[in-house]
Amino acid sequence: MTTGAPREDRYPSRIGGHPKILPRMEPVVHAPARTNPPIDAGAIARYERDGFLVLESLLQPHEVEALVAAARDLLRAPDRLETETLIRERESQEVRSIFKIHAQSKIFAALAADPRIADIARFILDDDVYIHQSRLNYKPGFRGKEFYWHSDFETWHVEDGMPAMRALSASILLTDNSALNGPLLLVPGSHRHFVSCVGETPDDHYKHSLRRQDYGVPDDQSLEHLVAAGGIVAGAGKAGTVVLFDCNTMHGSNGNITPEPRSNAFFVYNAVSNRLEAPFGPPTPRPEFIAARKDVEPLERRARRAA
Amino acid sequence: MTTGAPREDRYPSRIGGHPKILPRMEPVVHAPARTNPPIDAGAIARYERDGFLVLESLLQPHEVEALVAAARDLLRAPDRLETETLIRERESQEVRSIFKIHAQSKIFAALAADPRIADIARFILDDDVYIHQSRLNYKPGFRGKEFYWHSDFETWHVEDGMPAMRALSASILLTDNSALNGPLLLVPGSHRHFVSCVGETPDDHYKHSLRRQDYGVPDDQSLEHLVAAGGIVAGAGKAGTVVLFDCNTMHGSNGNITPEPRSNAFFVYNAVSNRLEAPFGPPTPRPEFIAARKDVEPLERRARRAA
Repeated sequence: MTTGAPREDRYPSRIGGHPKILPRMEPVVHAPARTNPPIDAGAIARYERDGFLVLESLLQPHEVEALVAAARDLLRAPDRLETETLIRERESQEVRSIFKIHAQSKIFAALAADPRIADIARFILDDDVYIHQSRLNYKPGFRGKEFYWHSDFETWHVEDGMPAMRALSASILLTDNSALNGPLLLVPGSHRHFVSCVGETPDDHYKHSLRRQDYGVPDDQSLEHLVAAGGIVAGAGKAGTVVLFDCNTMHGSNGNITPEPRSNAFFVYNAVSNRLEAPFGPPTPRPEFIAARKDVEPLERRARRAA
Repeated sequence: MTTGAPREDRYPSRIGGHPKILPRMEPVVHAPARTNPPIDAGAIARYERDGFLVLESLLQPHEVEALVAAARDLLRAPDRLETETLIRERESQEVRSIFKIHAQSKIFAALAADPRIADIARFILDDDVYIHQSRLNYKPGFRGKEFYWHSDFETWHVEDGMPAMRALSASILLTDNSALNGPLLLVPGSHRHFVSCVGETPDDHYKHSLRRQDYGVPDDQSLEHLVAAGGIVAGAGKAGTVVLFDCNTMHGSNGNITPEPRSNAFFVYNAVSNRLEAPFGPPTPRPEFIAARKDVEPLERRARRAA
């Protein structure tokens, strides 16, 4: 901040004893009306209304195969990865996520920049984009743990200093996903409401929250309210399906006792005009591999440089 | 046992270090062919093939309402119930199950004896039946825990001394159940295979196993095998739906982060000819409220006496 005036916080959270639902201040689709969208206008309208969009089988089977093989290779040679980017299950020590895959793997860098996904992100956010966070998620069969409801934006705002709702996520399914093996669950329409959470954020919260969320957890009543209004939809589909969702869409997933593991690649696209500031919560920002602060080169330029 | 000869154990389990899949020794439908079934013969054939049957909306809405009200009343006055029949969640201490409801509530006694359910049990088991176990299950919203895969018969045989596969369960849904709020998951065809589990059974195992299963847990490979052959089906439906399943059908449920709680009444019908003997595992049988040993009066006679 260059002035001495206190910074405005449009979305205060984790500052008091009472949860609150605040209205969204930014548009969902930032592109001006009548701009030609890169996909069917009806799909963009559904994204605007629901806060997400399921693009079935966007990737071809041979593309999925190559990504699955690359994901397996990353798991097989963990020594080649930056240690802190490997997140393990608390009990079994199995790898649950690998962060920063767009910077540690060529094929996942190409996937992040793939125009079939990135063009939609640029259109919806009406700006150049960079990768705020990327990761590979492995949810094992039999003993896959649940991930409780949350808005990503709540965390990115409080812990990372993302100023506004001008970011979106793409989850690229690398395994077939049904309603029964712990798919992504989304609450349609929830992206229009910011659930301000109770409690404060402890130091180094991120070390635990990547495995289990204890802070920034929405209260039962707000969740009931959002679900009563919008219901719950599973972002499921065949491998190669891409689920795009707004940074503030309430989502989570149940555990998975089925033998079918679930894995996906996950990219967060942020508008370059929405770069991180100082966190709105605790003063120390989370590390670069979780929330890009330096490496914010627009994806198109980055891809040209790599080519 | 009246003779000195060692008793035959058709389904040995928890006795060695290696899991095994053994064939089922008894029929699934015990009624002789060409007997007139109390429901559509096609439904009986599906039960025989899959090991379960979903009877959608078998109960009328007003019947469900009365049962839900009765279930709520039981929860509100826990002092009137036998203390040991109340099972609470380990962390929250919320009531997870109430056992022996057919003996502690008139309306649930009537439900257990309802000919729409009990007649099917008598037909399939080709015998008079009594209630081996009954309970009300409350799976809360938001933080409902999973219940791992198991065959009920494995436990009833090893811990309770149920000699043969001549019992079935009825789960009566008291809330709407979807694929997303932790429904009963069943593996079609698994009832034909007995998964002999590794490990032994500690004393007083039941005190913990009602909340979490640590023994009598099928191994990953056997589960993969069964699921590869039969898949997984959710026993979901509107409130009032009844799911009937064979005592040896592999089943479980995922956790439930949705706001929708899930509750059901559960009755196990055992053929009077299949009454409990000494357990095939540890010598001390589980208590009467979990596994009826004395109170084995056939349901029809019991109902006449109560009328």
